[in-house]
Amino acid sequence: MKLYTYFRSSAAYRVRIALNLKGLASEQIAIHLQKEGGLNRKPEFRAINPHGRVPALAIDSGDVLIQSLAIIEYLDETHPQPPLLPRDPVERAKVRALAQVIACDIHPVNNLRVLTSLRTLFGAGDEDVVNWFRHWVNEGFQPLEKILASSPETGTFCHGDTPGLADICLAAQVTNNARFGVDMAPYPVIARIHAACMALPAFQKAAPQNQIDAE
Amino acid sequence: MKLYTYFRSSAAYRVRIALNLKGLASEQIAIHLQKEGGLNRKPEFRAINPHGRVPALAIDSGDVLIQSLAIIEYLDETHPQPPLLPRDPVERAKVRALAQVIACDIHPVNNLRVLTSLRTLFGAGDEDVVNWFRHWVNEGFQPLEKILASSPETGTFCHGDTPGLADICLAAQVTNNARFGVDMAPYPVIARIHAACMALPAFQKAAPQNQIDAE
Repeated sequence: MKLYTYFRSSAAYRVRIALNLKGLASEQIAIHLQKEGGLNRKPEFRAINPHGRVPALAIDSGDVLIQSLAIIEYLDETHPQPPLLPRDPVERAKVRALAQVIACDIHPVNNLRVLTSLRTLFGAGDEDVVNWFRHWVNEGFQPLEKILASSPETGTFCHGDTPGLADICLAAQVTNNARFGVDMAPYPVIARIHAACMALPAFQKAAPQNQIDAE
Repeated sequence: MKLYTYFRSSAAYRVRIALNLKGLASEQIAIHLQKEGGLNRKPEFRAINPHGRVPALAIDSGDVLIQSLAIIEYLDETHPQPPLLPRDPVERAKVRALAQVIACDIHPVNNLRVLTSLRTLFGAGDEDVVNWFRHWVNEGFQPLEKILASSPETGTFCHGDTPGLADICLAAQVTNNARFGVDMAPYPVIARIHAACMALPAFQKAAPQNQIDAE
């Protein structure tokens, strides 16, 4: 398998963690999103991946899978051990929902391309961008903290005592928050789970600073 | 089941379609997102759903499920007929990815709360908001059209000749695009699939204008 990745991409980070948790090797190909107006916009990459974003996972069949959550569910379906989702449908829905609070509510609005658009379209400055980023993290983390703090399923990780899909999204988000100085004091459960994740080699090795393209 | 919904919400629209495709009855409870600063922000609704957004599906166990994609996968797992995802893991990943190009790349950035923030934080006017909306639709629809036009799996619908998860997201997005005057001329395959969806009662009945809270 070949993973098209960018060290800072939160979505690529998720797939790197999943590959590590599953013990799957992959060749990592770095696609710099800021150099030369974005290497992901070049025809060479678009030929491989018309979507033009990272992560993309080229699998042995020749298919190139896109979208981090879809890729992770694929890895979980084809390599069931260790499972990244519970077996019960209601519990699966809860874990997927926790993941999606991050992957659908927070991350897309704070993506590099959106932050860049705020600057170019509305003249947003550094402080505006930081405030925007923090605002949407807080909008998502407030309910996330409440759910995790009150749910009987919460353990060492978001659901029980083994890491899964929600932890993958949580860890990548919290790690990337640090660049924007998000105050984690209101989120003790999220912070505790992040620490539990980062104590595991699968999460550590996937972290931005440990990638081949880290700056 | 009780579905907390808002007629204009693209995410609630997705769940309404899925319930109809599965032939499942639900009580619909309208949560107006604009009246009185958003009825979703009231303590009564937060007590039921700490996430404070629609859709939310209260199921018979007492659990309240959130996040449209998680809810739809739950419905598909608990009511397998007709299936909303293919059986093969690679094909499932492709369909989920098509859905997520819309649900993770386009919709969150164009959500009501984001558009409102552009106005309040950056003084965006009506034209700025319309241009913003169209920009992110085009950023997602260009690769989506390319993938659908070139994929051998594309049929009457996004994957074969029966509607599934990707069609649900596509239909809700295209329907809501109309309010922002998105030009569909560059997207003949997406437009064709949308028309095929809207010819089905399950999609029609779920449309915004056919809801109890439609204005």
